[in-house]
Amino acid sequence: MTTVGRIALDVMGGDHAPRKILEGALRATDPTRDDGLHADRILLVGPRAQLSPILAEHNALDRFEILDSVEVIGMHEEPGTALRAKPKATIPMCIEAVRSGDAAAAVSMGNTGAMVGAATLILRTLPGVRRPGIAITSNLTGKPTTLLDMGANAAPRGSDLVEYAIMGAALQEGVLGVKDPRVGLLNIGEEDKKGTKLTKEARELLLESGLNFVGNVEPDGIFTDCAEVIVTDGFTGNVVLKLIEGFGSFLLDKIVREGKRIGQPLPDEVLDEAMRSVDYSEYGGALLLGVNGVVVIGHGRSDSNAVLNALKVAAKDLDSNVNGRTVEALAKRAKEHPAP
Amino acid sequence: MTTVGRIALDVMGGDHAPRKILEGALRATDPTRDDGLHADRILLVGPRAQLSPILAEHNALDRFEILDSVEVIGMHEEPGTALRAKPKATIPMCIEAVRSGDAAAAVSMGNTGAMVGAATLILRTLPGVRRPGIAITSNLTGKPTTLLDMGANAAPRGSDLVEYAIMGAALQEGVLGVKDPRVGLLNIGEEDKKGTKLTKEARELLLESGLNFVGNVEPDGIFTDCAEVIVTDGFTGNVVLKLIEGFGSFLLDKIVREGKRIGQPLPDEVLDEAMRSVDYSEYGGALLLGVNGVVVIGHGRSDSNAVLNALKVAAKDLDSNVNGRTVEALAKRAKEHPAP
Repeated sequence: MTTVGRIALDVMGGDHAPRKILEGALRATDPTRDDGLHADRILLVGPRAQLSPILAEHNALDRFEILDSVEVIGMHEEPGTALRAKPKATIPMCIEAVRSGDAAAAVSMGNTGAMVGAATLILRTLPGVRRPGIAITSNLTGKPTTLLDMGANAAPRGSDLVEYAIMGAALQEGVLGVKDPRVGLLNIGEEDKKGTKLTKEARELLLESGLNFVGNVEPDGIFTDCAEVIVTDGFTGNVVLKLIEGFGSFLLDKIVREGKRIGQPLPDEVLDEAMRSVDYSEYGGALLLGVNGVVVIGHGRSDSNAVLNALKVAAKDLDSNVNGRTVEALAKRAKEHPAP
Repeated sequence: MTTVGRIALDVMGGDHAPRKILEGALRATDPTRDDGLHADRILLVGPRAQLSPILAEHNALDRFEILDSVEVIGMHEEPGTALRAKPKATIPMCIEAVRSGDAAAAVSMGNTGAMVGAATLILRTLPGVRRPGIAITSNLTGKPTTLLDMGANAAPRGSDLVEYAIMGAALQEGVLGVKDPRVGLLNIGEEDKKGTKLTKEARELLLESGLNFVGNVEPDGIFTDCAEVIVTDGFTGNVVLKLIEGFGSFLLDKIVREGKRIGQPLPDEVLDEAMRSVDYSEYGGALLLGVNGVVVIGHGRSDSNAVLNALKVAAKDLDSNVNGRTVEALAKRAKEHPAP
């Protein structure tokens, strides 16, 4: 057994930790599943004393290696302060495992800011990347669309958005096999002059980037397959993410209630189909692109299905060598467009 | 008859002009309706030669006064350039009618940027307002929530957001009768430190503003009745607006298709209820707050129902003297918080 391709899983992250996180790991490594991961590929990071009884319940006491870690960074702690106060908490320990080579990927459903902070500090960014970006690949249109940054950096520069575009394109090519993916810039109009100082700056740089840049994409473009990669700043990206989730739940709830009220409840098939569009657990987690290692950040409300999918995302990214491809793409860009 | 409370309607604005715009005006002034407006309250602004045949079809050739204007600013023209090239187009003519006192309100379904530009230039901003903001009052939660700015100014200052908050609160108090409305700041987290330089600056100023400031509101707060007024920059506001519309249509379409596929089409009552949440025509249009006059900007895709509702919004704002109340609120604020 080697530690190549191993995934450090923060068992204490998210609202349903540790039980649902462990159940996700158990499902991902279910030996009766054809697409299951080998249990060797998962390194549990959390308090052994708390995990053992739950594993014992599932007759899986010896299935995983455990990296004992008793401290936890809460969902609402200020990331910088928390990381300084608790360097041995599960989040920095997961990331440290990647740095030391004990694992190749880190997965947490916990504090996003702490994951971004720990990864940036401990793993450092890839050559040519100033700031990492959080990428989510959704499948709303039936074709995967990668959106970034969904909240790592609320105030990026134009050049950061170009780096996001290069990394998003490398992900689409490397993991999803999309040749020369279309890149769009999220904006409030299709016209050149629309937007903010940032979008104008990013637009100019993207036009010269050598990427397959298709120009500005309006927010409804996310649902109409007009680009495989859509870049934006982390503030807007996070608003988009939370709005889709909030509005989707709101609208579905309204439809379900009205159906009940008139005595014609929504059929399960219809509800399931609609839910798939708004259910984060199907996406499995966001990728932090631009750091030296595969880092997956799941939703705080993750259930065991979401954890399972997050582990699959991590495994797939490792197996397709996303980071290697990203480094190559960044180096190619640096050669063709040397920094001024 | 006086011109007090008269509404100048741009008959050439929007995708379905002039026919649907005229039909909206006809419906709004239908003499058989109890809540109808008197036809004297509407001043049609557009090419007489094109309007007369349509009015004749409806036996309403003499119902309205027409301000003859043959030039039109297209939906995708760059506002500044278009306003300089066509000062006699329907949009600037509507606004000019308000300036001259021929009308008290202007309504257009046309080029938003041109409406904002013409109103700012010709009517000027209210005392104490640096930049006007576009406000939309939605009724998603069953209680009206006013969101602004939805796109007038993509790069505001923190102090602009405070002015938006004062104006939004005056609107809620004056038109909707909400006492001391709660004001929230759209942000990507509830914690103080979240967000951008702009949100941090606005937060500090809102805390000292004397308004009923409830702090940061996350995007899903729009659907959970946590504030009557939610302020944001025009870039984010416009993204929110377009995303709700785009995602709403996308999700409903998915539900309708899946229902048909399994032979259980969505009942009309359910679809209607859901549609009301995403249908701009129910809102009737956005208000441009902060200029010397009532200015309503409708959706480019407006049908006659949307035009009818936009005219009602304008009439209601005039009758409740929104601008007078806003001026008072701004003056009170200036007295209590003199500019440094």
